[in-house]
Amino acid sequence: MPFSAMLEEYRQRIRAELDRAVGFWLENSHDGQHGGFFNCVGKDGSVYDELKYVWLQGRQVWMYCRLYRTVERFRRPEILEAAKAGGTFLRRHARVPSSGGPEKCAFCLTRDGRAVKVQRTIFSECFYVMAMDELARVTGDEERQTEAEKMMDQLVHWARVDPSGLGRPAMPGDPPVNSMAVPMMLLCLVGQLSEGRTSLARKYGEVAGWCVQQILQHVQRDGTAILENVSAEGKELPGCQGRLQNPGHALEAGWFLLQYAQERGDVALQKTSIEKFMEVPFKTGWDKEHGGLFYFLDVDGHCPTQLEWSMKLWWPHCEALIAFLMAYRHTRDPAMLERFGKIYDYTFSHFSDSVHGEWFGYLTQQGQVALDFKGGPFKGCFHVPRCLLMCEQLLDSLLDEK
Amino acid sequence: MPFSAMLEEYRQRIRAELDRAVGFWLENSHDGQHGGFFNCVGKDGSVYDELKYVWLQGRQVWMYCRLYRTVERFRRPEILEAAKAGGTFLRRHARVPSSGGPEKCAFCLTRDGRAVKVQRTIFSECFYVMAMDELARVTGDEERQTEAEKMMDQLVHWARVDPSGLGRPAMPGDPPVNSMAVPMMLLCLVGQLSEGRTSLARKYGEVAGWCVQQILQHVQRDGTAILENVSAEGKELPGCQGRLQNPGHALEAGWFLLQYAQERGDVALQKTSIEKFMEVPFKTGWDKEHGGLFYFLDVDGHCPTQLEWSMKLWWPHCEALIAFLMAYRHTRDPAMLERFGKIYDYTFSHFSDSVHGEWFGYLTQQGQVALDFKGGPFKGCFHVPRCLLMCEQLLDSLLDEK
Repeated sequence: MPFSAMLEEYRQRIRAELDRAVGFWLENSHDGQHGGFFNCVGKDGSVYDELKYVWLQGRQVWMYCRLYRTVERFRRPEILEAAKAGGTFLRRHARVPSSGGPEKCAFCLTRDGRAVKVQRTIFSECFYVMAMDELARVTGDEERQTEAEKMMDQLVHWARVDPSGLGRPAMPGDPPVNSMAVPMMLLCLVGQLSEGRTSLARKYGEVAGWCVQQILQHVQRDGTAILENVSAEGKELPGCQGRLQNPGHALEAGWFLLQYAQERGDVALQKTSIEKFMEVPFKTGWDKEHGGLFYFLDVDGHCPTQLEWSMKLWWPHCEALIAFLMAYRHTRDPAMLERFGKIYDYTFSHFSDSVHGEWFGYLTQQGQVALDFKGGPFKGCFHVPRCLLMCEQLLDSLLDEK
Repeated sequence: MPFSAMLEEYRQRIRAELDRAVGFWLENSHDGQHGGFFNCVGKDGSVYDELKYVWLQGRQVWMYCRLYRTVERFRRPEILEAAKAGGTFLRRHARVPSSGGPEKCAFCLTRDGRAVKVQRTIFSECFYVMAMDELARVTGDEERQTEAEKMMDQLVHWARVDPSGLGRPAMPGDPPVNSMAVPMMLLCLVGQLSEGRTSLARKYGEVAGWCVQQILQHVQRDGTAILENVSAEGKELPGCQGRLQNPGHALEAGWFLLQYAQERGDVALQKTSIEKFMEVPFKTGWDKEHGGLFYFLDVDGHCPTQLEWSMKLWWPHCEALIAFLMAYRHTRDPAMLERFGKIYDYTFSHFSDSVHGEWFGYLTQQGQVALDFKGGPFKGCFHVPRCLLMCEQLLDSLLDEK
């Protein structure tokens, strides 16, 4: 097949999948009564639990706004209205000031917005920032942007100055850890807030640099492994925690870094992002027997203690697709496109549901569907459409250049 | 095969498995330097992480003492000494008074005893009680018994009067729930503390009655389902939480109840314990396609959101073996022995490791070993030897009577 025909074929399938995925959420997840979104949605779209997870509420608001803002065919009133209703629901209910700080958000809410659970981490708040900032961009509502910034400053304070507001008691046997998720998320948020805004890019420039340094500390063992948790000084930690590898997370960090490095023209970081954060986790994380990316691995080959370690989850595959297509666009190295093709073949033949649309989220190691819902406490309208949107846009730019 | 020959065959295999299991922990888990036990032990006995989990420390102390106290061939100094060293380690390090109450215990400690994590539940403390009480019984040390009682009173206070000392903030969307684990564990502890002690049986008699009533509230849907979580008033809860079934837990509750009902000569409760807490979860929980008990199920047939729902775990099978052999001894109903035989065949052919001894803990739905360690954060020297010990003793009494 001629080269551009292959890219065109990818684009067509990806565009169709994106339309189906967005259609699935538009049809099945809106709560017309209370605003916000049903998250627990079965394989056929039926709601099997009415709880609302704040990570997923924020992510869906962000996704809808981003689609509305950047893709002509999604500039539809129903998408904007649902995003605004989701934003209102979040602003009204997500923050639970009593629990550990003025800006702490719940993890989970009842359908009508009463707090069910609060996590002692920063992630509900991170997705709150994403939602508010993208909402500000489509509505022009500056209050939302101010709110996003204020929460961002709180996040930076928790991550860099004093985490005590998160409510986790300090434990003598549990010194501070540099966990990949934190600098990754903050770097992602800096990108979100800074896009097209010189003053904010300046304001958060130092934070971004710190995030990059924190992420780079996870390159361990002479560059042969990306470890999920390292010490605050960037050294390997003892035991299972220290040996943990999360290939999907490393790949996601890879494209965050590549995007950042491209914006700044940082050639060394571009190289590192691909060689260390894409090639290494793909090599170590790909299941040579059954295909697909493992969820967790132990760098010394011990069995991880997470029961789901060998399962194939949708989101690492989403992140891998973005990573290698972005790497290909950046380098034009055919090996990158080959990786993309390999992941694409596995992903579209295993995760995509040809009957009801959207993707299954959880497969056994052998590739059978193990949990058949489309939405659950950790899967919503986010990784699949973000991946498809970004891949479509990357393919657009590759095909436009031809 | 003549009937008694079959029972004898079971007994011989079970006795041999118990010797191998105990031998495995004696050989591989003792920390001669700091006392206590290594919990993270690979398939061949090698230690892959030095963290010490308080649930498992307490359980191993209890198990060693119970073996020492009740089985002639385990009345060995090395078992007693290891149990005492484990008890000393627990007393020295488990309690972390700063976090939520004077008696709160950590969930996880470093090898040398520094607290790593505290759960906002009662279970570390429950296993602390079991350890101290059984230690008091073998050593005659009354201080340990006093300590067990004092912690028990704290547990009852948390469970029945005021849970705020556990450190979980009350959430408006999360009203109090009757979760099966709590009354089950407290009933187990009442049995532990009361054995052969009239005054304590009297002291905790009312608590035991409360536990039984709380457990019986989990019989739902006209007696066709045991649900893991119900409201404080004993009603079904909405959503996934309310529809959750945990067959292994129900079966464990079943033999706790049967034991309690036998001691009191409560015929109605004996019947309920077998018909509702054994027959129902076995019927709903057994995988008719691949064999084995599912870990979680949704009573309406939705897919559970726990990623491991379809896996086969060792401990539900341990509890099922105890439950049906106890039910058989109680009723002499051949159907009970048939169930035991079916679970026995699956368990011994799938979980037992003929190479290194002890059992694997986690199988795929299809019955392949998914995690190959013998000890991990939630698997230690407890369910396997407790099951084998109790089954051996039940078979002894059945064969003695012939």
